[in-house]
Amino acid sequence: MSTSNENVYIYGRNPIIETLRDEAERIEKIFVRNSLRGASIQPILEAASQHRIPVSHVPGNRLYELVGSVNDQGIVALMSSVLYQEFEEWLDTIETDHYPAVLLLDEITDPHNVGAILRTAAAAGIEAVLVPKHRQAPINATVFKTSAGTAGRIPIVRVGNLNQSIMQLKDEGFWIAGLDMEGDKPLWELQVDRPLAFVIGSEGKGVRQKTLEHCDYTFSIPMHNRVESLNASVSAALVSYEWQRKHDR
Amino acid sequence: MSTSNENVYIYGRNPIIETLRDEAERIEKIFVRNSLRGASIQPILEAASQHRIPVSHVPGNRLYELVGSVNDQGIVALMSSVLYQEFEEWLDTIETDHYPAVLLLDEITDPHNVGAILRTAAAAGIEAVLVPKHRQAPINATVFKTSAGTAGRIPIVRVGNLNQSIMQLKDEGFWIAGLDMEGDKPLWELQVDRPLAFVIGSEGKGVRQKTLEHCDYTFSIPMHNRVESLNASVSAALVSYEWQRKHDR
Repeated sequence: MSTSNENVYIYGRNPIIETLRDEAERIEKIFVRNSLRGASIQPILEAASQHRIPVSHVPGNRLYELVGSVNDQGIVALMSSVLYQEFEEWLDTIETDHYPAVLLLDEITDPHNVGAILRTAAAAGIEAVLVPKHRQAPINATVFKTSAGTAGRIPIVRVGNLNQSIMQLKDEGFWIAGLDMEGDKPLWELQVDRPLAFVIGSEGKGVRQKTLEHCDYTFSIPMHNRVESLNASVSAALVSYEWQRKHDR
Repeated sequence: MSTSNENVYIYGRNPIIETLRDEAERIEKIFVRNSLRGASIQPILEAASQHRIPVSHVPGNRLYELVGSVNDQGIVALMSSVLYQEFEEWLDTIETDHYPAVLLLDEITDPHNVGAILRTAAAAGIEAVLVPKHRQAPINATVFKTSAGTAGRIPIVRVGNLNQSIMQLKDEGFWIAGLDMEGDKPLWELQVDRPLAFVIGSEGKGVRQKTLEHCDYTFSIPMHNRVESLNASVSAALVSYEWQRKHDR
């Protein structure tokens, strides 16, 4: 691993293949030496394409500028500058006396939405945003840009299995509130005298049924004019600020 | 003017030049015959570029498919399918007994934001969204798409001069509420026992000073973690739903 200008790079075929396999969402961009073609880098290009990671083909001296005189094997990856916390670590440090709230994102695949959610959550004083590792927009440069630079101001916590994490949150005293069109109550009836985890689903599908079953209650946002859903970042904003207006009082 | 498949087209040099000059935001796209080059269409290409209207160079028979056997002079424009109301007409029909609310957009230039605002405003039961003709994202296909098809469910009212329209709204009994970081009160103190017009500014600049001076009061959205502004569509959502939760009660 190598750093320059505060950017973190990894290099060499195997480290990059392993990172693509285990935590592809941490890779921002891949640089491949122009002269490198053919079968040796094919698996890397395929994995990058699958995870929608941009690949630049550049002259060898560009790689030298990035990582210096190392055996880069013609391939360098820029790592995400956003720092995650792992769920278990985060859970060890969380204090619940002040009744914090967290957001749990359920399959929100548009990085613009994730960026907008981080920004609003930070503004509303939400404690952390929990982001599954799979079927979820990677926390990449687009997310960071859409968050208007606020992504670093709120812990982003990586979660392996959403439903299992929900059980662990319950053990810590959190109540799990799902946002759902057919929710039990309008959002305005939310009570904030307890630690809360809000599950925000994707725009098209909402929170998955299996996850809804783990919720202690569900809330709906009332809608007129036959509008059937709101943008996920708008739903998250309404939830975050519903919590803030009551919690800060 | 010609219609086909529910699309509305205008054709010929002069009609298109006039429309580009007077209401460019109504033009969705311009089609130019491949063989047409040079000075005769230069003013059209320049105006289209200035208003960010896409131009396609197509074979002559494509134009025939669009508008049939007319003297199209090699140039056809697809008009916006979104139907506006003009401010004066709309104002004549508005009833204020039920204390409606409208949104006034002040220089919101990102069509994604305008689309998201229309969608949330429709869902919240806002009466209309007032959109200035100038320095404002055109209501185009991007807006329509981002609104998830809801743009047609809420009147979109075109306003010539924002500040003059504010005066006319006041004459009709509307109170003008500006959203501003340094607002007089937190948004949560909003009272809805009167007709309300909310002025939503752009993300970077907020509501312009001159417009703020026309407001009866200003509201702020409380922010933590040194976040300095919210996305315009998030601000509009919080305002729209603050109004709804109180108004529908």
